[in-house]
Amino acid sequence: MKTKPILNEMTPYKPGKQIDEVKREYGLEKIVKLASNENPFGFSGKVKEELPRMLESLEYYPDGHAREIRGAVSDFYQIGEDQLIFGNGSDEIVQILCRAFLEPLTNTVMAVPTFPQYKHNALLEGAEVREVVLTEDGHHDTETMLNKVDDHTRILWLCSPNNPTGVLLGEEKLKEIIDRTPSHVLIVIDEAYYEYADKEKRASSLELVNNHKNVMVLRTFSKAYGLAGLRIGYGVGDPETISAMEPAREPFNTSVVAQKAAVLALEDQEFLEDTVTRTRENKKAFMDFCDSIDLRYDDSEANFVLLHLPISGDEMFEYLLTKGFIVRSGEALGIPESIRLTIGSKEDMKKIQGYIEEKVKQEEEI
Amino acid sequence: MKTKPILNEMTPYKPGKQIDEVKREYGLEKIVKLASNENPFGFSGKVKEELPRMLESLEYYPDGHAREIRGAVSDFYQIGEDQLIFGNGSDEIVQILCRAFLEPLTNTVMAVPTFPQYKHNALLEGAEVREVVLTEDGHHDTETMLNKVDDHTRILWLCSPNNPTGVLLGEEKLKEIIDRTPSHVLIVIDEAYYEYADKEKRASSLELVNNHKNVMVLRTFSKAYGLAGLRIGYGVGDPETISAMEPAREPFNTSVVAQKAAVLALEDQEFLEDTVTRTRENKKAFMDFCDSIDLRYDDSEANFVLLHLPISGDEMFEYLLTKGFIVRSGEALGIPESIRLTIGSKEDMKKIQGYIEEKVKQEEEI
Repeated sequence: MKTKPILNEMTPYKPGKQIDEVKREYGLEKIVKLASNENPFGFSGKVKEELPRMLESLEYYPDGHAREIRGAVSDFYQIGEDQLIFGNGSDEIVQILCRAFLEPLTNTVMAVPTFPQYKHNALLEGAEVREVVLTEDGHHDTETMLNKVDDHTRILWLCSPNNPTGVLLGEEKLKEIIDRTPSHVLIVIDEAYYEYADKEKRASSLELVNNHKNVMVLRTFSKAYGLAGLRIGYGVGDPETISAMEPAREPFNTSVVAQKAAVLALEDQEFLEDTVTRTRENKKAFMDFCDSIDLRYDDSEANFVLLHLPISGDEMFEYLLTKGFIVRSGEALGIPESIRLTIGSKEDMKKIQGYIEEKVKQEEEI
Repeated sequence: MKTKPILNEMTPYKPGKQIDEVKREYGLEKIVKLASNENPFGFSGKVKEELPRMLESLEYYPDGHAREIRGAVSDFYQIGEDQLIFGNGSDEIVQILCRAFLEPLTNTVMAVPTFPQYKHNALLEGAEVREVVLTEDGHHDTETMLNKVDDHTRILWLCSPNNPTGVLLGEEKLKEIIDRTPSHVLIVIDEAYYEYADKEKRASSLELVNNHKNVMVLRTFSKAYGLAGLRIGYGVGDPETISAMEPAREPFNTSVVAQKAAVLALEDQEFLEDTVTRTRENKKAFMDFCDSIDLRYDDSEANFVLLHLPISGDEMFEYLLTKGFIVRSGEALGIPESIRLTIGSKEDMKKIQGYIEEKVKQEEEI
């Protein structure tokens, strides 16, 4: 059986270590996963309380139009229902965008490193991927990116805050990019970590969507809302763009449970605020710790930090694993001498800071 | 924004009528949905009882490798874990297959009418779709289908029992097709309704997979297992084919809840047997009723029947709607003078039979 030739060059997804696996392997009782930017404070108590009572009629297909959560998001952000498309996580929206807009002889422009699914899905569509290396301090190199855009560019990806650096693209910068990008290019601003960003610094991105037909914003319930296990995210765009994408969406792509849980989660803004406040506090403390031992990090507005190290990311990753912490090694992210770690609870952050310091000091002594 | 040109020719998915919508519109208290081949007997009591207690840790991403349900399905059918790929419903496996194997200058062969997502996804990949009309009595016209296969054919789709006719492709027929199909063509046997088919008549399709590298079988938890709302299905194939497809699968495509519920559902074979027995009884009674008033139907081995009518499908559909029954009009399925209806509970089938008879008699009197 012949696949698309590009598939031979792509690595199948390698699942990360599961918590149970690490427990067994290292004989540890408690494992703290700070690898996938999940919410250490869980998810809304309202979801926890009400969801179990909502597991009726699972034998019926979900509402393919996702009316209830569509209405809720539309109300919450005061945007049109026809501006929304829901996905099995916002990564599915990335897939839908690529399936709808990319094909051979087109190209797409993105930063590197950034969320890897833009490239992955673009390659599957046979499009040319134009990657532009981030600046030294983890920002999008927007000048070079804009220079890469041409008549055949279909999508310009902007991840803000960017994964894995956490660096935010501010409103002024975004406006400049939009002004300088030709109108035939769809500008996708992936805001999976939007809720964590400084309210003063983050862009009014939904206004940008309303004022520019070629701007789309992606959001998710997987991060600050803590529902990664259920898979639901969405895109906000111009109604015409949304409608043009619809045939590339599977008819029943979000589950009954995900749709219901997302409605409850959105209602519980208190939980969200608490998550954001605690995360920002713990992040500040972590950055202060890094300053105190002269470790460099990127200026993160997300719930994770990219930490630059005097040793390889794999070495630190392995060391922390023996202590019961799973983080992400920078080698997998394209920045070998770094790790990306999710900001966890105060207690866990204190512990991991100790281990990081220990390991770095060990190295210095050698 | 330019999409792939093919998207302009495709209709975005139109969501069917929701039960609540019909209730309001027609001022009815009870609506019976016999339109999407869902299970009228719900889903396993074990799932109902245990699932609500399993909604912990939803803030973590699902296991992308779906280890637990993978192990369970592998044990149950005595097949290798590396022979399995899980999807957000088996319709996602259709999407993954198309993304992995189809591209411009390739073609794919299928019956018409059949499950529409084969064609839909193939078109999105830019492949040529070669459709072969079913025989008069709803069978695959395998002779013509085999003649359509050439060096550029990548996938041959066989839906058994076929949607919307319910007609089964038996073991002998399948073996003949496999023998006569060149080995570069992947033969996909979509068995979404497998569990409902007569155990004596249905093929040992997993054996066919084990004996032929180019055969893949699709199964789902959405139909007889009654978990359509959660979205989980799978493909069984040669390990090399499965591995080749993996890059075209989204890393976290099935939810935590779907994976857990499927494990519990698979364990409860008593519920499954009960569903199948009751469905087959009610289907037999419905077919006897059709015989008694001289209505023709296709020989279904699924949980639905394609009923041929002396009037248009839309007319019967609208009539039944006023009586509180949602069925599928044949006009949407490519067989205008028909309806497809899911076999429901004994009580509901008795009622709908009365309404069908009433409508047909009305017509005859005019």
